[in-house]
Parts: sequence; structure tokens; C-alpha cells
Amino acid sequence: MVRLGIIGYGNLGRGVESAVKQNDDMELVAVFTRRDPSSLEIKTKGVKVDSVENVAAYQDKIDVMILCGGSATDLPKQTPEYAKLFNVVDSFDTHANIPTHFANVDKACKENGHVGLISCGWDPGMFSLMRLYGNAFLPDGEDYTFWGKGVSQGHSDAVRRIKGVKNAKQYTIPVEEALEAVRSGSNPKLTTRQKHTRECFVVLEEGADAKAIEKEICEMPNYFADYDTTVNFISEEEFNKNHSGIPHGGFVIRSGKTGWDLEDTHVVEYSIKLDSNPGFTSSIILSFARAVARLSKEGVVGAKTVFDIAPAYLINRSDEDIRAHLL
Amino acid sequence: MVRLGIIGYGNLGRGVESAVKQNDDMELVAVFTRRDPSSLEIKTKGVKVDSVENVAAYQDKIDVMILCGGSATDLPKQTPEYAKLFNVVDSFDTHANIPTHFANVDKACKENGHVGLISCGWDPGMFSLMRLYGNAFLPDGEDYTFWGKGVSQGHSDAVRRIKGVKNAKQYTIPVEEALEAVRSGSNPKLTTRQKHTRECFVVLEEGADAKAIEKEICEMPNYFADYDTTVNFISEEEFNKNHSGIPHGGFVIRSGKTGWDLEDTHVVEYSIKLDSNPGFTSSIILSFARAVARLSKEGVVGAKTVFDIAPAYLINRSDEDIRAHLL
Repeated sequence: MVRLGIIGYGNLGRGVESAVKQNDDMELVAVFTRRDPSSLEIKTKGVKVDSVENVAAYQDKIDVMILCGGSATDLPKQTPEYAKLFNVVDSFDTHANIPTHFANVDKACKENGHVGLISCGWDPGMFSLMRLYGNAFLPDGEDYTFWGKGVSQGHSDAVRRIKGVKNAKQYTIPVEEALEAVRSGSNPKLTTRQKHTRECFVVLEEGADAKAIEKEICEMPNYFADYDTTVNFISEEEFNKNHSGIPHGGFVIRSGKTGWDLEDTHVVEYSIKLDSNPGFTSSIILSFARAVARLSKEGVVGAKTVFDIAPAYLINRSDEDIRAHLL
Repeated sequence: MVRLGIIGYGNLGRGVESAVKQNDDMELVAVFTRRDPSSLEIKTKGVKVDSVENVAAYQDKIDVMILCGGSATDLPKQTPEYAKLFNVVDSFDTHANIPTHFANVDKACKENGHVGLISCGWDPGMFSLMRLYGNAFLPDGEDYTFWGKGVSQGHSDAVRRIKGVKNAKQYTIPVEEALEAVRSGSNPKLTTRQKHTRECFVVLEEGADAKAIEKEICEMPNYFADYDTTVNFISEEEFNKNHSGIPHGGFVIRSGKTGWDLEDTHVVEYSIKLDSNPGFTSSIILSFARAVARLSKEGVVGAKTVFDIAPAYLINRSDEDIRAHLL
């Protein structure tokens, strides 16, 4: 059994909790929170809720700690800190800061004999693996990543921060013509605007100025200014009915050439369509937690990414079984 | 540099030769043939063509030997035999016999200190990896593999063996309705006939009985009887013009559920569209040959499959580089 702990009980933490039920070789030992533990009720009967302050007492009881905090402020501190006490897995997704984060986690892991797998999920994660496989197999080529259709939490937050906005959700939508151009194998150059559109569903506070808010959204630098954005104002009722889920999806496409004169074109496409972004992410995290537990048992230490994990380590089946039935 | 040898100079061997040109860290040392070496001209200037009988003399000159023979009779003998002398990679694709083949190669490798990676390519190979990732990430689900549209060499051969057939090519075609049903996430049960159709293009010998040949094809057990098959009789001219390539493709789709009450459905799809089946296969083989060379340098011995290879070993870029740019 792989004994797991969860730090942080938001969407991702709850997803991990549910995913444990689907994996016979996994056991949830405790959920840790920064709040008063008595204020938090979790779904799994008999599993302890404790304060993060008591986490050190669990060193012999937990094989892998799953860090479910946010990438902006939580994980840069938490992952190196808890890697001193436990093997850890996080879903750090600020791509530009991965090298620094990796170095910090690597140091903590090596000084304390742990394995720390960072940036796990679908992007970074499975999409990264698809980019790597694509670049390895088709060195003369281009890769393209499209996200959506799905909810961007960061963009939804940005809209919600606007004065007069009561609630909002933002969907990132890949442009079908761009996808088709890439699938043709023509390796097009695509601008930011050509690849994705953004669609917002906004509930206004009473008396708010819809026109001004629409302008403020569409002109918001970094978030919306480089995109074609549609803003829909809807009632709170409609919002709750149709926009309460967290669906997502995306595509990684590699197109490249082989042959003596590079005469043959190949297109490789990986796509996902998810009812629940945290549901799929946490399920991936559990597979990599299994790999971390196995590597740690083998005496491996240090920071790792999805690139470092042999696929056989991810699944709860024997090598003989997967060779006979999945190969 | 990874120094490579090729045994067998058919479509796959020629594909490997071309792929070497696309990989700066690869060097082709020699091509080995069972024929008279002087009768074989290869494309790469300055590379030796030698008889397979002299292969032992290359033990210190070749890091990985790529075995490009067929799975029916060549590889079951060749891979264990040459694994005594070299690190090897093969594309053994008789799924049912993989456990036996693995055991034979593993024994030869372990007795002689080599790494032998078997069943490399796209199926078995990348499709196998996609089945494994799918099963690991979505344990409550189903996976589906579709092949095509593309040329099945085995089925084309079967048609060519019919008396009165001068030439023939058989395309395997996935049924669009079946693909759509799988993509919907409904996890349908599909029969062999519902998943693929088969289309044959046949050039007749003079005076052959088209009607009888069509019947013989469509009723051929194992090959065609369980499928809806279309037979087109065409001229040799049209055959050479439109059916001389070896395109292929396919889809691996995993659909499964997550959530406390399994309320969320996810669909993951990997698809390839290839101008040249051996072109893509040989390119994948080269990446895994790189991994084999690295593992051997680290002191690893034994038979391996694609499941055992950490993705970072496949690419000619540093770990720092791939973390910064592909993760």
C-alpha cells in the first residue's frame, strides 16, 4: 500500500481524495489544513484531518505527501519545505519558474533522502510528455499546444476582480481553423490571436455599467488584449445552472518530416476532453505518487519530473501483466 | 555519438538509415545483409555493407544494433542471437508471443551484459504507452485501439497469394461512427466488424476470374471474413500511380470516469497520420536506441520494453533544457 497525505483541501485536494478510492493500492492517511482542523469535514470516513503544524509527526506514517496548494505563493515555499520531511508530489505550473523550483526541491530532497516530483498533471505533465515524445521522434518538425475548450481559473479570477462584477467564468477556446491548419502538416506560424479565443460569462452587481466592464475586460493587458474576446452578461441563475463546472481540454500536435529527402510528413495528435480539470489532474498525480513511492523504496533521491519516470512505474500492475496485455 | 548497425535492409532498415541523418548524435557504422554484400548498395556514402556472418567483428565498433527483420521468422531467432554480441533494438510485433520473446532476449542480454529493447515502434510502441498511461490515469474506463487508414502488409500479402492476382494492396480503415461513439465517452462494446472495414485494390493476371477472386478475398478466414470488405479491381498503371506508398495511422482512445461518485467523464485520444509507416517506426526506434545506449553505459542489463524507458532518455537534449523548454 502507498500511504498518502494531502496538504490543502481545495478542488485538487478533493480530487486526490476521490482518486484514492479508485486505486486499490493507495491509502489516505490524513488531510492537512492551515485552517482549524475541526472546521473541515472531508468525504472519506475515518481519515484524520489535522493541522499542517502537526505534519512532522506523520513522517513514519506517510509514504508520499501530495501538495495541493497554488503555484503562485503556496508551492514555491511548501514543496521544498515538506520535501525535507516527506517524498512529495506537486502540480507547480508556472512554466517560467520551473528551473528554480526544481533546484530548490532537489536540494531539499537530496539533503533529506527524499524524492520530489514537481509539475505533475496534464500541462505541465502529460502535455509535456507529448511534446518530448514528439520532439524526440520527429526532430524535423514543430509542436503546437492548444488549450480548451475549458475554464481558465486565472482569467476568471481577473474578471471577478473588476469592480461591478459579481461572478464570472472565462473559457479558453482553441480556434478550429488553426487546429485544422496544424493537422494538415503545413507547420503554420500562428499568432496568439490566431490560436485561441476567450469567452467570458459575467454576472453584474446591481447598477454596474456593462459597456464599461466589457471594455475593461477586452483591453486587459496580458489576459485579454491579445485575444478576440466575447463577453456575455448573464443572470446569476443562468450562471449557477450552466457554468458551475470546471471542464477543460486541449491538444498537443507534433508535425514533422522523415525520409532521405524529408519527403514524408507525419502528424501526431494528443487530445483530452475533461468534465473536470481537477479530477483528471489528481488522477495523474496519484499515478506519479505511486512511481515516487517505488523509486524511494529503490533508494532514489532528488527532484524529478514526469520526464524522469519510466511508464511502468505508474501503474498498479506487474511488468509481466502489462507486457502481455498492454504492449 | 551513438554508433549504430543495421541488420536487414528492407523498408525499415532504409528508414533507420534515413533517420540517422536527422539525429546529430547518431552515426551509422555498417549495414549487414544475408545477401552478397557487393549486391547491396545503400544510400549513405562511406558506410560499410557487410555480411551478417562477419557481425561479431563489430562488437567494439557498434553501440546498438538495430534489427530490421520480420517478426514471423527473423526476429524470434535474431534478437536473442545478436543480443549475445550487442545491445539491440527490435520491432517485434506479434503481440501474443511477446512474453516468450522477452524471456529469450532477457536471458541472452543478462548472460552477456547487454540491453535489448523489444517491440519498438508505434504498435507495439507508442500505442502501448498510450494504453498504459490511459489505464494508469483512468483506472475506471476502457481503451480502444483503431488502426488506419493505412496499408496492412500482412493482408496485402494474403491477397497477393491468391491465384490470378498480380498485385494487391489492402487498406485498413477505422469506422467513423465507431470512433465517434468512443469519443462520446459512452464506452460502447464494439465488434470487430463495427470497428474497421477493409478495402483492397487488386491488379488481376490476364484472364483471371474477378468474381471468384473477390469471393475468395471476402471469405478468407481470420483476414477478411469478420470484416466488411470492398474489393476494387484496377489497372497496373493506376496501382503504381496511386498505391505505391505505405501510409498508415491509427487512434488510441481511453475514456474513463473520476469523482467521488464517478460523476465526471474524460476522453483522452492519441492519433497518428503517417505518410510512411516505416519512416515513423524507424524514427521511434532511433530514439529508443539512444535510450538503450545510455542505459547500457549506466550498467543496466536485460530485456526492456518501451514501458521501462524514462522519456528523458529518448531525446538528444539535456535534462535542464527539456525542463526549461518542454515541461
